[in-house]
Amino acid sequence: MKNITVVGGGTGTFVVLSGLKKYDFNLSAVVTSMDSGGSTGKLRDQYGVLPPGDVRQCLVALSEASELWTKTFLYRFEKGDFKGHNFGNIFLTALEQITAPDYQQVIDTASYILQTKGKVIPVTFDRVHLCAEYEDGETLMTEDLIDSAFYKEDRIKKAFLKPAAKPNPNALNAITSADYIIMGPGDMYTSIIPNLLVDGIKDAFVSTNAKIILNMNLMTKRGQTPNYSASDHVIDLEKYLGRAIDVVIINNKKIAHEVEKYYEEYGEQEVENNLKHFDAHAIKVIEADVAADAAFKKSMADVIVRSLQRHDPDKLAKVLLSVIQ
Amino acid sequence: MKNITVVGGGTGTFVVLSGLKKYDFNLSAVVTSMDSGGSTGKLRDQYGVLPPGDVRQCLVALSEASELWTKTFLYRFEKGDFKGHNFGNIFLTALEQITAPDYQQVIDTASYILQTKGKVIPVTFDRVHLCAEYEDGETLMTEDLIDSAFYKEDRIKKAFLKPAAKPNPNALNAITSADYIIMGPGDMYTSIIPNLLVDGIKDAFVSTNAKIILNMNLMTKRGQTPNYSASDHVIDLEKYLGRAIDVVIINNKKIAHEVEKYYEEYGEQEVENNLKHFDAHAIKVIEADVAADAAFKKSMADVIVRSLQRHDPDKLAKVLLSVIQ
Repeated sequence: MKNITVVGGGTGTFVVLSGLKKYDFNLSAVVTSMDSGGSTGKLRDQYGVLPPGDVRQCLVALSEASELWTKTFLYRFEKGDFKGHNFGNIFLTALEQITAPDYQQVIDTASYILQTKGKVIPVTFDRVHLCAEYEDGETLMTEDLIDSAFYKEDRIKKAFLKPAAKPNPNALNAITSADYIIMGPGDMYTSIIPNLLVDGIKDAFVSTNAKIILNMNLMTKRGQTPNYSASDHVIDLEKYLGRAIDVVIINNKKIAHEVEKYYEEYGEQEVENNLKHFDAHAIKVIEADVAADAAFKKSMADVIVRSLQRHDPDKLAKVLLSVIQ
Repeated sequence: MKNITVVGGGTGTFVVLSGLKKYDFNLSAVVTSMDSGGSTGKLRDQYGVLPPGDVRQCLVALSEASELWTKTFLYRFEKGDFKGHNFGNIFLTALEQITAPDYQQVIDTASYILQTKGKVIPVTFDRVHLCAEYEDGETLMTEDLIDSAFYKEDRIKKAFLKPAAKPNPNALNAITSADYIIMGPGDMYTSIIPNLLVDGIKDAFVSTNAKIILNMNLMTKRGQTPNYSASDHVIDLEKYLGRAIDVVIINNKKIAHEVEKYYEEYGEQEVENNLKHFDAHAIKVIEADVAADAAFKKSMADVIVRSLQRHDPDKLAKVLLSVIQ
């Protein structure tokens, strides 16, 4: 069975894992643990826990338990003492209070209870913050500030962690033993690159024999990838990877006009596919219809919704399969 | 396989179920759902849920899942947004928000996840309050007020629900189809008798062929059973049952002096065994060592602690077994 490792966090990784879990792979998900916003941020402050948000999403994506149970795990309280908190975050927080400092037990217990197919691997167990230095000289020092920097049109010059973080040995192993490593879609600087900033992860990428596949984002993002073309995404990612990407999967389905208009209001647009002219690289480019048919409503509080236009898990998985098999 | 139904709630029922689950019975637990204090009371107010406290304890008592998971279920947060709440209560609250108004789905899902051996059956799904009219004329209108009425030396003249409550059909069935019904130990007026106040439950007790076993409390309790002898307990319970109790199991092991002294400070003492002289009844009285060796510390926040001197689950189960088999 092929070893497939997905590196990321957030909604994009949820989509990739949801699609791939239907096939027979040894699946691992290496995920960021630098979140500092919303429910996750409060729990981090109040209980000193490893930010649970991305771990929660990946556990649910890989879960084979009943739908009611996964729905409960994603449920967000709308009132009372637990207002704004996801049940899954509360669950991981309780587990960590009991098992501390052994975070692996949190993962093992949650995986057991959620009947996950595959491993969820926080890239580090260290409590660190993500920082980004922008071209205009400003430096934002937490993940939630970067994630909400919609006001910025500048690019990020340099992303780093404060303080430095030791890698989770299981993360190193999942990278070096992989046949394929899948990255994206997802926010480049808050979901994907943070993984590469942890000590030793870049070295693992350089030394692995795995082929690296990038699922190109559908849309640009202010504060992270403003006005980025496809090649801009590749260039940034390769800088932090220390090596070349082998395959890029990029959507060729027209994004609905009303969705485009919604993004335009925020100064964001479809990522331009300029990879044909990006010939310095021996990248294999696969153009395919991988976008979801229905755009996601922002108002659905009880499901994972961060982006309006998402990839379709099944379409994406099928294209990935054509590469992997 | 014998049908054994335990009727109650609280720590005492937890102890009985923990002991009995090791043997081969069809176990059912009919439990109160009138709690209004602490974490349970807050959740009741804020989310309108069926009070989760007693259901939670019974689910854990019957759980055959890993110890870490049951420990998590009982975990009480000590700080932050969730301060004072048990994780299990939060879990049941989240489930109920999703499945409302179908509470049976809450029970089914929780039972599945906790791998419970046996059924947990809230006596009613109605949201009602427990009331107690005392001999001095005062009436307390919620469970938590009655539970904390340590200042009262008066007896309760009459307990009732406000408004009246419809029975859970599964509760009626568990009573009428039982071979044995076990009640106690536990707070008479906040854990045991509330079950009997629900419409139809008394009739089910009158019509069932089950033998009724009462595990006599070890200690008296101010506000509920002040200065009660063993026969006082029997008389009160039979009044609400509408029928005779068949067997009473009463402890004959000396309670430690320091434990007695602790209770004395609160005006409470060991329940006097006067059942030898209680000859109007054909009750079978079994005197046995059923008390726990170590008294429980009040300060252990992460385990169920409401009473200092408890029954021993295994000793009690063995004596029950001698009656049942």
